[in-house]
Amino acid sequence: MLHFTTDHLKTFERFYRANLINGISGFKPAALIGTKSGDGVSNLAIFSSVVHLGADPALIGFIQRPVGVSGDTYRNILETGYYTINHVEESTVDRAHYTSARFDAGVSEFEACGFTEEYLGDFFAPFVRESPIRIGLQFAEEFHIRRNDTRLIIGEIRHLTLPEESLLPDGNVDLNRAGVVSVSGLAYYHKPARIGEFPYARVAEAPKF
Amino acid sequence: MLHFTTDHLKTFERFYRANLINGISGFKPAALIGTKSGDGVSNLAIFSSVVHLGADPALIGFIQRPVGVSGDTYRNILETGYYTINHVEESTVDRAHYTSARFDAGVSEFEACGFTEEYLGDFFAPFVRESPIRIGLQFAEEFHIRRNDTRLIIGEIRHLTLPEESLLPDGNVDLNRAGVVSVSGLAYYHKPARIGEFPYARVAEAPKF
Repeated sequence: MLHFTTDHLKTFERFYRANLINGISGFKPAALIGTKSGDGVSNLAIFSSVVHLGADPALIGFIQRPVGVSGDTYRNILETGYYTINHVEESTVDRAHYTSARFDAGVSEFEACGFTEEYLGDFFAPFVRESPIRIGLQFAEEFHIRRNDTRLIIGEIRHLTLPEESLLPDGNVDLNRAGVVSVSGLAYYHKPARIGEFPYARVAEAPKF
Repeated sequence: MLHFTTDHLKTFERFYRANLINGISGFKPAALIGTKSGDGVSNLAIFSSVVHLGADPALIGFIQRPVGVSGDTYRNILETGYYTINHVEESTVDRAHYTSARFDAGVSEFEACGFTEEYLGDFFAPFVRESPIRIGLQFAEEFHIRRNDTRLIIGEIRHLTLPEESLLPDGNVDLNRAGVVSVSGLAYYHKPARIGEFPYARVAEAPKF
């Protein structure tokens, strides 16, 4: 077993440390966030920091890295108020990964990476046609984490599309049936296989361990 | 394809909606958060909301649900300043799941669910011996999301342990080799298998899609 302390972490080379710390947060959702600027340039970027915030109201969060030259997602959300979260389907992991490249201004990652923009009704932000589970959100609130200049971006769900066969009778979602993938670190994509299913945990029904 | 709007979601029965909205955030990390109260009662609770915040300083966040009778994790973190994040190993998913049951006050989930407390040096919070990847954190900051009374809890990494064979030469972590699992919704545990690995994305090296 390896054991590192804060002092060890500080001595690590920058990219080594980034790989390590990104890796130890575990298996994460792989989501493409779709936006469009006020002057009509669409944008698509992969994020691994989507997090459930609550079901009523239905809120989803994600972490925005420090906004520099590559902060189009954040700027579009603040400018227009709308964005989409589109889960990555297993046959598109390569294309999804390359949305993180810094394409020139005015180039849409939809076109550069081979994804298709799709619009639902009059919802402003573009959905990804190739994504099985898609969420349209209205920006609600942001929290600026000053200590490392990241932001928690919170949106309320306005639209949700998913394959009929992935929605189970109790409201649970079969992500495997939908072909959704998981990401770890900054480089690895995974197809999860179910190994366990458990009911709502009650003390009286808990096995003896 | 099913298409729901905010109005549809509002009409859904409470547990159905909770399953659905928890499900659509995707495959999530499965982590046991270990704490100890000031008077020495240890606590262990499963969370699926761990999120990477940054590598320098090394920060990790998680979302704390509204604090009610079951808010021991939150209260212990605020009281003592320390906690651990322990990734769930595949042979322990059943025990890990049942840490979410509401055991009586004074009962430690470590004992009730068959996990072993382990202490590293003088670090106050208990680690899970059965976990392959473990992080000891010092509480740094919280953001209260008033619209649904949840909280983003931020900690700085003080300790990190992981299996030697899971740490790759470039700092990446092989979570599969460590036996770490993923969770979806509130009920399903998964073993991910790697399907893709890609370098840092540069426009000049991007394939034509």
